Amino acid sequence: MTELTTVQLEAPYLILIGDITDSTYAKTGLGIVHWRPDLVAGQLRFPGCKVDMGVPDLSISEAVDAGVKSLVIGVAPVGGEVPDSWWASIEEAARAGLDIVCGLHFKLADFPVVAAAAEASGARLIDVRNPPAHLPVGNGFKRSGRRVLMVGTDCAIGKKYSALALDQSMRETGMNSTFRATGQTGIMLAGEGLPIDAVVADFISGAAELISPDNDDDHWDVIEGQGSLFHPGYSGVSLGLLHGSQPDAFVVCHDATRKTISGWEHYPLPSIKDCIEQHITMGNRTNPDIRCVGISVNTSTLPLEEREKYLADLSAETGLPCIDPLIEGCGAIVDYIKEQFED
Amino acid sequence: MTELTTVQLEAPYLILIGDITDSTYAKTGLGIVHWRPDLVAGQLRFPGCKVDMGVPDLSISEAVDAGVKSLVIGVAPVGGEVPDSWWASIEEAARAGLDIVCGLHFKLADFPVVAAAAEASGARLIDVRNPPAHLPVGNGFKRSGRRVLMVGTDCAIGKKYSALALDQSMRETGMNSTFRATGQTGIMLAGEGLPIDAVVADFISGAAELISPDNDDDHWDVIEGQGSLFHPGYSGVSLGLLHGSQPDAFVVCHDATRKTISGWEHYPLPSIKDCIEQHITMGNRTNPDIRCVGISVNTSTLPLEEREKYLADLSAETGLPCIDPLIEGCGAIVDYIKEQFED
Repeated sequence: MTELTTVQLEAPYLILIGDITDSTYAKTGLGIVHWRPDLVAGQLRFPGCKVDMGVPDLSISEAVDAGVKSLVIGVAPVGGEVPDSWWASIEEAARAGLDIVCGLHFKLADFPVVAAAAEASGARLIDVRNPPAHLPVGNGFKRSGRRVLMVGTDCAIGKKYSALALDQSMRETGMNSTFRATGQTGIMLAGEGLPIDAVVADFISGAAELISPDNDDDHWDVIEGQGSLFHPGYSGVSLGLLHGSQPDAFVVCHDATRKTISGWEHYPLPSIKDCIEQHITMGNRTNPDIRCVGISVNTSTLPLEEREKYLADLSAETGLPCIDPLIEGCGAIVDYIKEQFED
Repeated sequence: MTELTTVQLEAPYLILIGDITDSTYAKTGLGIVHWRPDLVAGQLRFPGCKVDMGVPDLSISEAVDAGVKSLVIGVAPVGGEVPDSWWASIEEAARAGLDIVCGLHFKLADFPVVAAAAEASGARLIDVRNPPAHLPVGNGFKRSGRRVLMVGTDCAIGKKYSALALDQSMRETGMNSTFRATGQTGIMLAGEGLPIDAVVADFISGAAELISPDNDDDHWDVIEGQGSLFHPGYSGVSLGLLHGSQPDAFVVCHDATRKTISGWEHYPLPSIKDCIEQHITMGNRTNPDIRCVGISVNTSTLPLEEREKYLADLSAETGLPCIDPLIEGCGAIVDYIKEQFED
């Protein structure tokens, strides 16, 4: 039997943002501070840094004294490289025994100085985008507990944000829920997870099954989605995740004004109606009771006076709660889920 | 731009079946001899071998003299291991400059003696199940030429056999067609291809696009399928392959008496009607003209007197040619394809 492993990070984190001058490139760090301040002990900044995440500045030795377990590289610069001048600090952290956590597109082990420092101290080098070895093939057996999956009319359309906001709303109303991460930023936020788009094709649904294991009957996994069933590049990931998640419920994430697949402009966005129907058609293979419980829309590109009407019309058309999670929050979707599943 | 690479094998082959005593375990070798005798120079057998593939016995030095380029491990033993006593011959072949081709679940490079011999001679060690690095993400652009994809109500239901038989029938009637391999045995048969189930999830449809590149307008790629859209373990592979293949046509492969997914007996087999409908619904994302052109049925488990009625009934129900490729051959499907696409 394969061991059930996902990527596991150890908190608290020291978040490295170095000497960046533009907060756009600190979105990983800022996301962690926004969503999971409880995981964050401080930030590591260098002279000239123009970004402040509003958490204590700590040196590496101060962080060690404060019980920090991991140095998280909190930037996502264009090109995906870390400036040469930062590596001395990363090496110092590894030598001091902090796990080094990175979601960029290189491998930490390819930096021999860092690898040697980590080996000497016993620290782990965690490339968040590397899935664990020995994943199982999906078995399709029914698991206990409830699951809600974020799906989308496209990639990069608010699935992670919607999942985090929905999980937060559920917990605020006293429900028993857990955000389940399927991508690198989500994994850093959750402290664990599995980068579903990086696993070998035969193991997509098996990996999805590991992400949301058996749980209490009243527990909800709120699962971060990936890609889209309608995406000419990534649909296989989305279907494997749908089948492996065996969701009871799904939320369609959408952008009010996007007309085509982002970066694949020769493909129109699917209609919300088609998106709901195809997820039910395909999803009922592993969960015959699957249903849509709401639509989470990014309305930031609509004129302010149009957004209420847009959401009201969509709600009338679909019979579902339609919200912008940044504005209305996910309360209406939580209410609908309770109505549908608690009786 | 990513280089467009697939696995490329060099013929002619010497096929190693060693000292096996049961032809069941020589199915890789026998498959190559059956379907692609033109690729085969001979067989390498050891004393005690009870299987004869009907091709010349050659020693490694005789094979080298005869211009052989690759030693293909032609067995698929239970457990996926090669007997210890065979490795001396594999090493000898590598030292003599023959590429070593293997589709089993270990890596040739993990055998240091073989690796050293190959390095000394310049021979390649080709693990057919290892996809090439640097695959692209699927772009979804329309390619020239025609494509027909084998799909299935389950795994291991005759997709490879059907593709090979259909390709052969098409060529016999003068059509311009190519079998496109997506799995290890298919790759050995075709001499090239890409093991689609072994690629990283984000690149499934990109890999499928490489497998059937632009071609002449009257050319047909006959693409080996993998998995099934209805398979709880492998559906992601199948959807990525469907979208990346952008098939004009598909053939449903089915087993007349199978009731449940093989090895996943808690899942019923889908109906042929549902199988056709879902492939059209999903497939029209990358090819709006996709249509089903026939059903290829394994009728070997039906009583002889029932098979004709079974196929006739299925044909009446679907309006499509329904054949057992081992018995009727694929001529009826070829005729239907001509009718549908040549005007």
